[in-house]
Amino acid sequence: MRTSPLNTDLYELTMMAGLRRHGKLGDTATFDLYFRRIPFQGGFAIAAGLGTALEALENLRFEEEEIAYLAAIGGATPLFDRAFLDWLRGHRFRGEVWGIPEGSVIFQDEPLLRVSGTLAECLLVETMLLCVLNFQTLIATKAARLWEAGGRGSVIEFGLRRAQGLDGGLSASRAAYIGGADGTSNLLAGKTFGIPVRGTQSHAWVMSFPSEIAAFRAFAETFPDNTILLVDTYDVVRSGVPNAIALAREMRARGQALRGIRIDSGDLAYLSRIARQMLDEAGFPDVKIVVSNDVEELVIEEIIRNGGRVDIWGVGTNLVTGGGTGGTALGGVFKMVEINGQPVIKLSDSLEKGTSPGRKQIWRLRANGGTQYEADALALEGEEFAPGRDVLIIDPRNPLRRKRVAAITACEPLLRLAMRDGKRVGPPESLAVARARRIENLDRLDSSFKRIVNPHVYKVGVTQALWRLKEELLNLQTT
Amino acid sequence: MRTSPLNTDLYELTMMAGLRRHGKLGDTATFDLYFRRIPFQGGFAIAAGLGTALEALENLRFEEEEIAYLAAIGGATPLFDRAFLDWLRGHRFRGEVWGIPEGSVIFQDEPLLRVSGTLAECLLVETMLLCVLNFQTLIATKAARLWEAGGRGSVIEFGLRRAQGLDGGLSASRAAYIGGADGTSNLLAGKTFGIPVRGTQSHAWVMSFPSEIAAFRAFAETFPDNTILLVDTYDVVRSGVPNAIALAREMRARGQALRGIRIDSGDLAYLSRIARQMLDEAGFPDVKIVVSNDVEELVIEEIIRNGGRVDIWGVGTNLVTGGGTGGTALGGVFKMVEINGQPVIKLSDSLEKGTSPGRKQIWRLRANGGTQYEADALALEGEEFAPGRDVLIIDPRNPLRRKRVAAITACEPLLRLAMRDGKRVGPPESLAVARARRIENLDRLDSSFKRIVNPHVYKVGVTQALWRLKEELLNLQTT
Repeated sequence: MRTSPLNTDLYELTMMAGLRRHGKLGDTATFDLYFRRIPFQGGFAIAAGLGTALEALENLRFEEEEIAYLAAIGGATPLFDRAFLDWLRGHRFRGEVWGIPEGSVIFQDEPLLRVSGTLAECLLVETMLLCVLNFQTLIATKAARLWEAGGRGSVIEFGLRRAQGLDGGLSASRAAYIGGADGTSNLLAGKTFGIPVRGTQSHAWVMSFPSEIAAFRAFAETFPDNTILLVDTYDVVRSGVPNAIALAREMRARGQALRGIRIDSGDLAYLSRIARQMLDEAGFPDVKIVVSNDVEELVIEEIIRNGGRVDIWGVGTNLVTGGGTGGTALGGVFKMVEINGQPVIKLSDSLEKGTSPGRKQIWRLRANGGTQYEADALALEGEEFAPGRDVLIIDPRNPLRRKRVAAITACEPLLRLAMRDGKRVGPPESLAVARARRIENLDRLDSSFKRIVNPHVYKVGVTQALWRLKEELLNLQTT
Repeated sequence: MRTSPLNTDLYELTMMAGLRRHGKLGDTATFDLYFRRIPFQGGFAIAAGLGTALEALENLRFEEEEIAYLAAIGGATPLFDRAFLDWLRGHRFRGEVWGIPEGSVIFQDEPLLRVSGTLAECLLVETMLLCVLNFQTLIATKAARLWEAGGRGSVIEFGLRRAQGLDGGLSASRAAYIGGADGTSNLLAGKTFGIPVRGTQSHAWVMSFPSEIAAFRAFAETFPDNTILLVDTYDVVRSGVPNAIALAREMRARGQALRGIRIDSGDLAYLSRIARQMLDEAGFPDVKIVVSNDVEELVIEEIIRNGGRVDIWGVGTNLVTGGGTGGTALGGVFKMVEINGQPVIKLSDSLEKGTSPGRKQIWRLRANGGTQYEADALALEGEEFAPGRDVLIIDPRNPLRRKRVAAITACEPLLRLAMRDGKRVGPPESLAVARARRIENLDRLDSSFKRIVNPHVYKVGVTQALWRLKEELLNLQTT
């Protein structure tokens, strides 16, 4: 599917026009897309958005009406000259892209994406790449946190009504599914990405019938295989659950089974515990309990700590917007690390901001025969990591802090070639593969990094070779 | 433009199928869309999104491929039967919509939208309406706060790269323009909505030239009428501003004028003050200063308080996501207030949650000849407010709190008929009209309500007639 190349900032186009004017269309560059801080004050993030980004890059082209819009900017004194717009008409993205596969566990300072090509083509796609990867990685990370907080139970994403725009909702559903949700309420996400769709009913349904039991009965008649009843329209304990049990008996008599109940208000820990007890005592231990209403990681932990009995967590606002604990945006940046073959750093970025020069690879290290992740090394392209060796890594934010990973037994490169000459090197990866990778990756991450509050900080360091290059450039540019 | 009706939650469709199955397609209802809390702990909100919502309603229809997707849900045991899907094929939205015009100042508990129609058609569009109005109202409110915090100076929206999805960015640009931004960097928003587009250049531009002055010179040659220079790539005070002044002299010698400089890092108050002084002393008092980098309301107030000299505020992340002070989502809800002609309330909603029954109008009252807004009355449809009369309003969250607005001199209904029988009653309103309304409305709002921190609470109350109806229904439903 084509994404309009006008999904970009004006200045990317003016810079392209300027490069053309000054004979710099042949200038080449490499950019790293990375973030400096893990969102939600967490200990890990989950990569997402690569598939969406690659599709947009491969189909990038300007339509005539888009060229016409650009030609009209500035009115009587057009901003862009005709020759530039003619050139733009034939412009395609022909660069090379390396990316971390979706569903991977990732950390601060690690390039999610490495883009090489002409400086002009890299600038054009900067804004789109940042938008897609920043947002999907934020939401996949949130979903993984919810999934871990709930003891890896079932999380369903219900967030479209509070999403930031309809496409904000759509891409949130995709990212949430990669990161930890098992389904979505969003039908368009179901159709577009093949995500399982889920739903119950709303208070308006219950209120449109003369009684709660009549509303329950009508729903079960229509959808006998998919009946989850909303039990909090009047009173969960005195009305909703007793009516649900009555209906469950009627269904059982017909050879059907009530799937579940949903509680959408009140004290979710208390109400789910009581509801579980009532259902069990009535002989319905298989009826699932769904809870919703401002659910987020800390709420889930608190409900579990207070004896709540929840099978399925319905999460809306906080999942699709990254709300609750922590921020609304992953502060990813797109920084030039090489220009015309020369590695560069940006001096005004302080050491803490951690720009590292040159074309790089990230190596994930496991030591001493372990299956768990030990540390990540940010290395120059071409550096080798032989098993059995020690690897010394240096904290790029404070070179006094170093770590030696002894006798590495396994190491894998995280960045994989995704696109060459503007074409994907393989077929698009399915979301199922990304989901499996997320589970496998999180299994290999020690629980101390997965803690919701105050997690341990995973070590990401640069190799000695990369550090030496950085130091050299620092010295050169220090005036 | 058509918006897919699959931008909805699965349960809306299952409820529609259930209503059809139970002969309830003729049931009618009225829903209010409103929020309970003003975002950002602020004293006012700005309505936005109505235009987008009306367009989506008017063009609502299912395409064959969407029907085919619905038919496939459930696989071997299809969730939806063929007869329902056939009926859906011919379904259009034919309801009546009243809305508060975009750019209006609004408050908690006030219906932004009142939708009447069949229960089925209202349910189908609930999710889309909430998504569009929740998000655009959130962002328009944020933009108005930024605009007020900066003393109504110029705000430019730069947020696409941190937006929640590309359409999250697009609709954010629209809402920001209504609420307080004068332009956007987002080209697609410029093309789609006619918003003025703005931009400077990035660090990569400056770094791709052998020197900062060479980069500045190249840009000015290409865009002599639109040159704003990014001065913080190396060192603002020692390099960026001196080079900008040198270039400004060259341009003046050619009869051109440097438009401005942009500072994107460091202490923005200090740097903008020094830069202003340097530019003024060099004879360039007309060169504007743009600042960007994590700008939000409190940052703007702090920069001004510390003597910063800023002409244009470039705001990204915090504007397009509603970040910074306060939340990521307006918690708008869509509540049934009437079913088959009977007003209803939902009992489990506590009094504080403020559901008010029946078809209503909101009246904005000005008293004693004043031009300022005094209070808003939530009234039953058909209640009259004659000038010169006193109006008693009752706090719907605590009926002990009452206010008498003496001798009202002006009052206007906020809800206007926007759509009848599924057709808009007039042509779409331009964004220019909405922007003018925002300015005029904010002019009439006392500054105590516009304070960024700890504002005064504007009074919104229900009339005695509405209160009596609510009490009656409360008594009836109390068991």
